Amino acid sequence: MDSYHIPKSRRILRPQWVLGPEGLRSGIEVVIEAGRVAQLRAQTGPVDLPGHALLPGFVNAHSHAFQRGLRGHVQWRQGSDDFRTWRERMYALATGLDPDGVEAVSALAFLEMALAGITTVGEFHYLHHNPDGAPYADPDELARRVIAAARRVGLRICLLRVAYHRAGAGRPPTPAQRRFVDPTPERALDALTRLQKLDDPAVSVGLAPHSVRAVPAPWLRTFAEARLDVPVHAHVAEQPFELEECRAEHGADPLAVFERAGLVDDRFCAVHLTWPAEGDRERLRAAGARVCACPSTELDLGDGFLPVDKLEGVEVCLGSDSHALIDPLFEARALELHARGVQGRRNVLSPPDAPDGLALRLLDAATAHGARALGVDAGRIAVGAWADLVAVDLRDPVFAGARPLPTLVFCGHPRLVRAVWVAGEPVVTEGQHPQAPAILEAAEAALRAT
Amino acid sequence: MDSYHIPKSRRILRPQWVLGPEGLRSGIEVVIEAGRVAQLRAQTGPVDLPGHALLPGFVNAHSHAFQRGLRGHVQWRQGSDDFRTWRERMYALATGLDPDGVEAVSALAFLEMALAGITTVGEFHYLHHNPDGAPYADPDELARRVIAAARRVGLRICLLRVAYHRAGAGRPPTPAQRRFVDPTPERALDALTRLQKLDDPAVSVGLAPHSVRAVPAPWLRTFAEARLDVPVHAHVAEQPFELEECRAEHGADPLAVFERAGLVDDRFCAVHLTWPAEGDRERLRAAGARVCACPSTELDLGDGFLPVDKLEGVEVCLGSDSHALIDPLFEARALELHARGVQGRRNVLSPPDAPDGLALRLLDAATAHGARALGVDAGRIAVGAWADLVAVDLRDPVFAGARPLPTLVFCGHPRLVRAVWVAGEPVVTEGQHPQAPAILEAAEAALRAT
Repeated sequence: MDSYHIPKSRRILRPQWVLGPEGLRSGIEVVIEAGRVAQLRAQTGPVDLPGHALLPGFVNAHSHAFQRGLRGHVQWRQGSDDFRTWRERMYALATGLDPDGVEAVSALAFLEMALAGITTVGEFHYLHHNPDGAPYADPDELARRVIAAARRVGLRICLLRVAYHRAGAGRPPTPAQRRFVDPTPERALDALTRLQKLDDPAVSVGLAPHSVRAVPAPWLRTFAEARLDVPVHAHVAEQPFELEECRAEHGADPLAVFERAGLVDDRFCAVHLTWPAEGDRERLRAAGARVCACPSTELDLGDGFLPVDKLEGVEVCLGSDSHALIDPLFEARALELHARGVQGRRNVLSPPDAPDGLALRLLDAATAHGARALGVDAGRIAVGAWADLVAVDLRDPVFAGARPLPTLVFCGHPRLVRAVWVAGEPVVTEGQHPQAPAILEAAEAALRAT
Repeated sequence: MDSYHIPKSRRILRPQWVLGPEGLRSGIEVVIEAGRVAQLRAQTGPVDLPGHALLPGFVNAHSHAFQRGLRGHVQWRQGSDDFRTWRERMYALATGLDPDGVEAVSALAFLEMALAGITTVGEFHYLHHNPDGAPYADPDELARRVIAAARRVGLRICLLRVAYHRAGAGRPPTPAQRRFVDPTPERALDALTRLQKLDDPAVSVGLAPHSVRAVPAPWLRTFAEARLDVPVHAHVAEQPFELEECRAEHGADPLAVFERAGLVDDRFCAVHLTWPAEGDRERLRAAGARVCACPSTELDLGDGFLPVDKLEGVEVCLGSDSHALIDPLFEARALELHARGVQGRRNVLSPPDAPDGLALRLLDAATAHGARALGVDAGRIAVGAWADLVAVDLRDPVFAGARPLPTLVFCGHPRLVRAVWVAGEPVVTEGQHPQAPAILEAAEAALRAT
């Protein structure tokens, strides 16, 4: 893995506008020191990003990077196609990648994220072992490869180390799941402890008990008793069949099972929750826990639409999950737009009654909420926070005559992002990433080999 | 209006790939003569669009160009916000634009369409008169302005001349609707006849009885009796309240009212039909009539999701309608993806069982189906058809390791379109339109004045 040093240099950005809590402001410069925002002050020199707005970088709180290899190969009907047949094809890809392949395809996903303005990724990482289930010589080989891929691209990463044990209640893992499984919960915790020692301020770790399907309840209690001070993310209620299976095993709904184990607190994030059960909103609000929606993947898989009205008061962050699409602005607007489609009215979310209120709320989901869900001090342009930033060109025709923030959220796409910085260091410049050709070539070679 | 001449020059395009009925093919060159595809043959020289795929230009079958001026200004809550409060704001914009303003804002919408790969627009044009309702000295002033805007940008346009008479059953037009109304159906037909005389092969006309709300049944019969050989488009069943009002007035559902008047044939296109009534599918199939879905606007307005499963066998085309978003690839994938969300399964549409089957079907909606709905021989790359073409750069990172056509449809965005030709003449080159700066400036000035 490339080593990483906190940049010691000082950098000043003078964009035309800077996004603050209440909208865009002009005349501000951002002083960056040691990778963090050191000052926000009146500009002391000419604008150096004319026509650009500086925003906090987007936070992609739920990613399975290697699934980028599925793109374009799973959009056709093969008999009766559903979530489970898609999953079989995902397992086949997971089985086919060696460590170099995992690193190469992950780098491709992270490159595309950087180009779309994502500065932090929460990688829900469940590929651990050899395809036959035997650990690598370094048992954290694949986690390190994925982290290396993110750092090579320049992204900040929170590696959410997955614990996975079984195919379902009373069912051992299938052959295709052998790469994912730990024999005991302690092994998962050991891996977490080792990965926590990585000496890179842009790398952090969290724990991801995969789901109530894949992780038995005693494991969940073991994780809670470990009293880890890390983010805990889990797949919860993505598909209706999961609820049925969970009720059959536990006599309770999935989120209630996590709560009963003691895992639902303000570090907990319920990924998907497309089908919240009775009481889930109160559970999450009481704990200060969060939801991570992945609208593009949830549409792709036919999961359904997140019922945002049933989660009022719960902080929602966003993920691109399977990377059928990597566009944080799409994910953000989908929170509101899908709810409009379902409810048959406009402005379903209830932000402050101001022209930019709804846009700011949706941008929060794509930035600050994700950062908090991953325990990273980013997702906002504020003194002390990491200088993870993106510049958007408001001179693009989509903005002509339009109010910029609502237009960015409801009409934006990845190529409006022209520059990206992580910890104050440039990652994307003029829409280009310097390592793109090499990353594309390696990923294409790896995918041809699967 | 700028005059237009069929280009006499011969042009040969040699892209890396050309889209045919069964997918992408390499080694083909497209010979263009007099604005049409004259030959498709084996390449006689080196590839001149390396890494690019040549597709038929997208057809935007439902546009209200001036509504582009609403973008970013109507995405916030003002008390109880719904379709009708949005419409009040749209009326205010409609009232505020003078002929120069209508032309300038229309040109902005058309410019953005061209940059997104749209080569033909169906402009559902209902701004006819002075804000006080008096005709302009040239009664077709605004129609000519909108056509001029499209031709200045370089788009092919089918002007769907709207007939509008009333606010609703028994209700005269409101002051804000005075610009839209004709006193008699004959006046609308007269306008159509005048506009049919425009001598430009890239301009055609159709008739658009606005809706059963705005047009009385006797007018519909007058239109049917005129036996016009032009496309007939109408708003049908966009919101549930329209069905209730229609049943109260006519004792029948909206599409049935059009059918009873004799208007539903293979030139008819039901715009929206988000709420199809019992029997609508059979009505459309029997007549060979079409549906035009506008998913991005229908989401924005909270209309609902088009139930594609209830319209199996009916040709569906696409429109960007209010231009909250102009992205034909989004509209195309939404047909399938929204249905997945509603139905909870993948691959709801049932295309040929082939890797590109679903992508080709959705691309047809964005191209050939729209062309047929507008009566234009385009939307396909075939000998004899207009050479309305787009080149997409498949070297973009979104395509790396992925199957191109499904990736384009499910992951594409406007900036992947690098070049656009209409009737064989370049409109967009290297992602740029030569008149963009002037068009943006004029539109911004016009919108500031409203």
